[in-house]
Amino acid sequence: MIKDRLKIATIGGGSSYTPELIEGYIKRKDELPIKEIWLVDIEEGKEKLEIVGNLAKRMVENAGLDWEVHLTLDRREALKEADFVSTQFRVGLLDARIKDERIPLSHGILGQETNGAGGMFKAFRTIPVILDIVKDMKELCPNAWLVNFTNPAGMVTEAVLKYGDFEKVVGLCNVPINHNMLESKLIGKDVNELVFQYAGLNHHHWHKVFDKEGNEVTSLIMEEMFKSNEQVLENIHEIPFFEEQIRDLGMLPCGYHRYYYLTDDMLKNEIEEFQKNATRAETVKKLETELFELYKDPNLKVKPEQLTKRGGTYYSDAACELIASIYNDKRTDMVVTTRNNGALDDLPYDCAVEVSSIITGAGPMPINFGKFAPAERGMVQIMKAMEEVTIEAAITGDYGKALQAFTINPLVPSGKIARTVLNEMLVAHKKHLPQFAEVIEKIENGEIK
Amino acid sequence: MIKDRLKIATIGGGSSYTPELIEGYIKRKDELPIKEIWLVDIEEGKEKLEIVGNLAKRMVENAGLDWEVHLTLDRREALKEADFVSTQFRVGLLDARIKDERIPLSHGILGQETNGAGGMFKAFRTIPVILDIVKDMKELCPNAWLVNFTNPAGMVTEAVLKYGDFEKVVGLCNVPINHNMLESKLIGKDVNELVFQYAGLNHHHWHKVFDKEGNEVTSLIMEEMFKSNEQVLENIHEIPFFEEQIRDLGMLPCGYHRYYYLTDDMLKNEIEEFQKNATRAETVKKLETELFELYKDPNLKVKPEQLTKRGGTYYSDAACELIASIYNDKRTDMVVTTRNNGALDDLPYDCAVEVSSIITGAGPMPINFGKFAPAERGMVQIMKAMEEVTIEAAITGDYGKALQAFTINPLVPSGKIARTVLNEMLVAHKKHLPQFAEVIEKIENGEIK
Amino acid sequence: MIKDRLKIATIGGGSSYTPELIEGYIKRKDELPIKEIWLVDIEEGKEKLEIVGNLAKRMVENAGLDWEVHLTLDRREALKEADFVSTQFRVGLLDARIKDERIPLSHGILGQETNGAGGMFKAFRTIPVILDIVKDMKELCPNAWLVNFTNPAGMVTEAVLKYGDFEKVVGLCNVPINHNMLESKLIGKDVNELVFQYAGLNHHHWHKVFDKEGNEVTSLIMEEMFKSNEQVLENIHEIPFFEEQIRDLGMLPCGYHRYYYLTDDMLKNEIEEFQKNATRAETVKKLETELFELYKDPNLKVKPEQLTKRGGTYYSDAACELIASIYNDKRTDMVVTTRNNGALDDLPYDCAVEVSSIITGAGPMPINFGKFAPAERGMVQIMKAMEEVTIEAAITGDYGKALQAFTINPLVPSGKIARTVLNEMLVAHKKHLPQFAEVIEKIENGEIK
Amino acid sequence: MIKDRLKIATIGGGSSYTPELIEGYIKRKDELPIKEIWLVDIEEGKEKLEIVGNLAKRMVENAGLDWEVHLTLDRREALKEADFVSTQFRVGLLDARIKDERIPLSHGILGQETNGAGGMFKAFRTIPVILDIVKDMKELCPNAWLVNFTNPAGMVTEAVLKYGDFEKVVGLCNVPINHNMLESKLIGKDVNELVFQYAGLNHHHWHKVFDKEGNEVTSLIMEEMFKSNEQVLENIHEIPFFEEQIRDLGMLPCGYHRYYYLTDDMLKNEIEEFQKNATRAETVKKLETELFELYKDPNLKVKPEQLTKRGGTYYSDAACELIASIYNDKRTDMVVTTRNNGALDDLPYDCAVEVSSIITGAGPMPINFGKFAPAERGMVQIMKAMEEVTIEAAITGDYGKALQAFTINPLVPSGKIARTVLNEMLVAHKKHLPQFAEVIEKIENGEIK
Repeated sequence: MIKDRLKIATIGGGSSYTPELIEGYIKRKDELPIKEIWLVDIEEGKEKLEIVGNLAKRMVENAGLDWEVHLTLDRREALKEADFVSTQFRVGLLDARIKDERIPLSHGILGQETNGAGGMFKAFRTIPVILDIVKDMKELCPNAWLVNFTNPAGMVTEAVLKYGDFEKVVGLCNVPINHNMLESKLIGKDVNELVFQYAGLNHHHWHKVFDKEGNEVTSLIMEEMFKSNEQVLENIHEIPFFEEQIRDLGMLPCGYHRYYYLTDDMLKNEIEEFQKNATRAETVKKLETELFELYKDPNLKVKPEQLTKRGGTYYSDAACELIASIYNDKRTDMVVTTRNNGALDDLPYDCAVEVSSIITGAGPMPINFGKFAPAERGMVQIMKAMEEVTIEAAITGDYGKALQAFTINPLVPSGKIARTVLNEMLVAHKKHLPQFAEVIEKIENGEIK
Repeated sequence: MIKDRLKIATIGGGSSYTPELIEGYIKRKDELPIKEIWLVDIEEGKEKLEIVGNLAKRMVENAGLDWEVHLTLDRREALKEADFVSTQFRVGLLDARIKDERIPLSHGILGQETNGAGGMFKAFRTIPVILDIVKDMKELCPNAWLVNFTNPAGMVTEAVLKYGDFEKVVGLCNVPINHNMLESKLIGKDVNELVFQYAGLNHHHWHKVFDKEGNEVTSLIMEEMFKSNEQVLENIHEIPFFEEQIRDLGMLPCGYHRYYYLTDDMLKNEIEEFQKNATRAETVKKLETELFELYKDPNLKVKPEQLTKRGGTYYSDAACELIASIYNDKRTDMVVTTRNNGALDDLPYDCAVEVSSIITGAGPMPINFGKFAPAERGMVQIMKAMEEVTIEAAITGDYGKALQAFTINPLVPSGKIARTVLNEMLVAHKKHLPQFAEVIEKIENGEIK
Repeated sequence: MIKDRLKIATIGGGSSYTPELIEGYIKRKDELPIKEIWLVDIEEGKEKLEIVGNLAKRMVENAGLDWEVHLTLDRREALKEADFVSTQFRVGLLDARIKDERIPLSHGILGQETNGAGGMFKAFRTIPVILDIVKDMKELCPNAWLVNFTNPAGMVTEAVLKYGDFEKVVGLCNVPINHNMLESKLIGKDVNELVFQYAGLNHHHWHKVFDKEGNEVTSLIMEEMFKSNEQVLENIHEIPFFEEQIRDLGMLPCGYHRYYYLTDDMLKNEIEEFQKNATRAETVKKLETELFELYKDPNLKVKPEQLTKRGGTYYSDAACELIASIYNDKRTDMVVTTRNNGALDDLPYDCAVEVSSIITGAGPMPINFGKFAPAERGMVQIMKAMEEVTIEAAITGDYGKALQAFTINPLVPSGKIARTVLNEMLVAHKKHLPQFAEVIEKIENGEIK
Repeated sequence: MIKDRLKIATIGGGSSYTPELIEGYIKRKDELPIKEIWLVDIEEGKEKLEIVGNLAKRMVENAGLDWEVHLTLDRREALKEADFVSTQFRVGLLDARIKDERIPLSHGILGQETNGAGGMFKAFRTIPVILDIVKDMKELCPNAWLVNFTNPAGMVTEAVLKYGDFEKVVGLCNVPINHNMLESKLIGKDVNELVFQYAGLNHHHWHKVFDKEGNEVTSLIMEEMFKSNEQVLENIHEIPFFEEQIRDLGMLPCGYHRYYYLTDDMLKNEIEEFQKNATRAETVKKLETELFELYKDPNLKVKPEQLTKRGGTYYSDAACELIASIYNDKRTDMVVTTRNNGALDDLPYDCAVEVSSIITGAGPMPINFGKFAPAERGMVQIMKAMEEVTIEAAITGDYGKALQAFTINPLVPSGKIARTVLNEMLVAHKKHLPQFAEVIEKIENGEIK
């Protein structure tokens, strides 16, 4: 039985996103009878935890709420009897992300911290940690829901489902909601007047849109999108898609599809950023320093506007809405990462997919999607295969698997360059890749070249 | 664009169910801006159409509504520019159903007017007529939704999808809602406090139930069901299921599963009814005569209580709610017959299934179900195969196909008896089976034995 | 590495079939460099083992071969370092089969010792024993191939694959080869001039036939079959199929399909046999007594003609050919029971199917079949589901599973009668059903009714 | 009924490969009772046809055979009542291949005349022609088998199956047989002592190998391959694979996988060849000139050794063996491109795949393969999707489809470069792309950029 008053724990509570999360809870105070919010972080994040944690406390107080906000480095204490656990941690902090992006770029290839070489390394670092968290949850709060925003959200969620033997996990991302907001605006509709159907993988999904009269308006949005200059997502460079190719797709791509459909221009742009020391990771690091400066202000009692630029807009709407929907069995229509079970016929039955779902008290129930047209199908299938091999590499620390994952990833050119980047990144992230210790030693010894 | 004021046509408008339908519309008057209701029937049903049509008019007037109620024998006029078309007709009227039930029983086998020998003949008579209606709709109201209650609702809906080349069709049945109502009562919950997940075929589905806290309560309901004597459905004999077998299923069966799980007792009961001239068809015919007597009363201005016994309880909640949900994009969770598209992995991609769906302005979006356990899987697969062969027989008038359908139907023993019953029924329904004319002639001539 | 001289062990070596097996080996003496043949049996079968074993020795000697024929009750000694193990044992001997057939018939339902109520009980008795044999094999001869003829061959083979965790198993049956021989004769061809493609389950498969010019001759054979009175199989009653239904199938059924397509007549015939104490089991028992009398004759040095009537014709061609094909990587085209792996798209990926395969040194490689038409599909799917549930019941001894298997088996009417027959058979076979001990006690105590 | 004496027609009969084909027929003269060989070519190929045709005549005469060798430009006359039709034509001749390879390389991307940008253009040019040939065959020799070697053999065969509505087609390639020959040699076995199981697409397949004792020797071959320097295929640059990645695959790749697994080195090598005007197409053109000089020699009466360098070694063993196997129902184990029908579970049911098959009188029956591991699965799935979109573009002449195919092809970087290369190639091949006429005009007018 769910408790009358909730305990919510956030792993990576010292994140700059936390104020948005708190704002989201406050907005839903009537739906979410929170008792305790536990913000957890690690020793290295202690200072940030205190800064943002104190802001969180001020926000709660300012809203006139009696919620307890706890700041702690003791994860197990935070998890104990929690009702919901959200994860937004970053193993190796932003410095690791800078390596994820800069090392590949230094060899002239995309870093892409979610599904490219960078994202694979983020998976290598994160998956052992999330499985450790799940192990604790099974002991300390076996009935809690795990809401994961940690990227690469698709792979991390699949690892929990397949290797953590834990079903109550939902992966979440703010990309779909940003599309919904922008696209409804583009055709002069309120977001609630449209039905969106998403299908694919995290940062690799397409969607169709219908109006309330049942007419498909996907093409209409497409044409408006081609005319418009609106930016969907802060964190990726917005080059116009090729209209003929998108029309042929018959579905709306997500912003991240630029990496696949317009690889050369995206790479060119990132190399420019790399040369100016302005990769996304570096930009974010700068933004975060500024944000934390703001957060320190004892007079700040609400989420500052500047957070929007960070790239996580609508996370509150996504994460808090998900928690509220599960708690209240709201049957909201949301896009989440969850177990496929045949909702997408072209992908393995037991893998994780990102799909429009109804959020019930029993968790997400995916709306069936069926089959893709070939152009989407082939792409999403190779991405899923890459995700599976990456996860296996993250679990086993096997060099062949890691090299395989690099080889089949469409964002990484295969051959010598893949091997070089892989080896360099393994060494660079040594501290956070205990499972690869032996392999890294061999690289350092020149046994693996 | 959907019109501001709606035109709704009902084929088989002279049915005794009509008052419930009208009541359902009236209940939803704020959601459904109806302008015209057209009740259509055929020459033989003219008298009943007038009786029930006049009651409908009195009901609408009594509710203080300005809706026009038209009674007509001209189907094309009724369909013209309609927004919704519902079908509740019965080719050959109740006398045909009496034959559907009595002929098999006279040979000691179940009639079962939905999925047994009787149901197959109902499909043979109905499918050519519904395809004719769809042909008219494509000409006269191509954007209207067809809401089909005519049994066998699964086969009729599949025929429209596959052979009518018409996507805007939804099949509907009152069995799921009856289960929902009873089962929530059994465990002391309000129906809205539970999440029901249905999967299968019309009159051959199973379901799981969850509470708002996400706990599966299927077993709890099962155990209460075993203790209780409550009747789920008026129209089928309620013998207790074998507890061990149902527990092994792991899902709740529907009332009609008694025909498959308890065949011998069901047959015994029907043979008793047959001997007393009290088959369900004969009982219903008597009930209908009484109902129409009641309906004639010019002082009757609401749906009479006695209609409940007829067996169609909650049709109003189902049918009118479906129409209101599509019109208003309500995203209600309902159980409907719609195209599979992989929602049920164990059944063909393009067939019709009965499945929990979200009803949007663009029609039903099935909630993905995935795979069944073997015990459900095998049954639902042979039933679907039987449906497919039956539909093919109904379309082609091929004797081999009809015999095949009889042979593989689990409710019909195969061999000489199947052949004898098939031949006798073909001859008995001759008038309503033009597609089988040649075959019937051969039977009458003794060329087919 | 396979040895130069082979050790072959036969579990159930005291079977009346053994002379045919020995004949088969002798026929293939140039392909099969046998060193030792071990015939194993249990204490109760000792006498028969000696009789038939001595005949085997005389046959080998008569053929001028130096093969050693060992007779033993020590299974482990026989299995030690064997190269091939064949199984043809019968738990409970023919008396158990008599119960399998007579108990259901005493309640007016088919016994059918392979896939009906009788076959399910044969599975309950056999599966624990075969798993025990496999356990020994994994220890004593882990590289040997297990060639299983023990019925129900499909379920027994699936149990080994799924629950025995042993891949080197092939199930074998003489039905396909009998069809091949008869059908080629029917259209005046040599059996090698035709290409047969079989697909389905043991005793539940269909096939297509092509001539060497690539023309499908399935229909041609069908029409000849309708004209002919030839008997395909000795052991089942040969009632003519309904021509229209078989034509609609588009594939040739197997002899056992009479139980499914002509249930009433088959039942009528079996009830007549039951009343005359001449069920197949009783007939076989009589035949066996006669056979063993013949076998005793010290002058008999070859397989006696009378064995043909026993019903196992062509077992030698099937079993010895399989062993010779594996040993010599002959790439023969044979019909065997093996793991599906998608060869039959309509059945689970990991189940056992009976399918035309190429027999290589690495075992059978199934020829891909693809999808069935609906009439075959539905039948084979429910049969497979029944097999899966039966196997689970055999493994777990769970009463609900056993009742479920009875309920969904198309040859067993469901309801009280199924339950009554199940309970009576459980008690009757008590001695050979240790896994059901608790359940049987409850039936005897009246706790299960 | 197949005739006693055969008529075989070869479209593209003027090809330099023809002598090998003739040699193959001669080698099989006892199995193939040939009456007439028709070599067909187009006006532009007349001279080569005469040269190679006369060599063919001399070869036949030299072998002491009475076969008629006809040289013709009249395709319809050649097809009339043919028993087998083989296709080895090249639309636009080698000059078109030079463009296929050089244009992409001039922009720094791989040409790859089978599955890369070059191969897609070869498909665009060839598919309309093959469909035209099939149209003639349906009229003039509807029972003949079409044996296609024209590259891209996978796409061309799929186009015939899907859009030509013609089932009697088999695609053929010499890559598998070259692997078989080399790999058996590597481990010191005769090719007939091993069982090879291939699965995938043309020029994109993997295989497993077993010895006659049933042991998998895939890894053994892998390790020998890593040690060896043997060249499998003349026509592709043989860079060593990364051992760790291949071991992780668990299957042996084909030579063409270098393009996918070692893209950067392969590109580097091709750019060097490009700069030296020594792309494969240019080399082949030179070789062909030399070969035709040799062919002119009236004293040459056998296939000259130099043909081996051309890159088509073992085509005779493949093509003539296929024809002989079908004609004689030899049930040979060969690797062919044929309809999937579920043999490879990870690819669409109705697509063409390259798979180990048994060649019967009724054509190839694929050996079931089942599912790939993720690393193979993702690659083969995107390649199939690319093939499907390419075929659609070839049929429709739609620019969006062509751009889509370029975008998702793993050998073509996406974005501006893909578009530039596509446009340039469309214009360059204008003469042979009537279906793209409107699109090409727009490119020339600057309406498409």
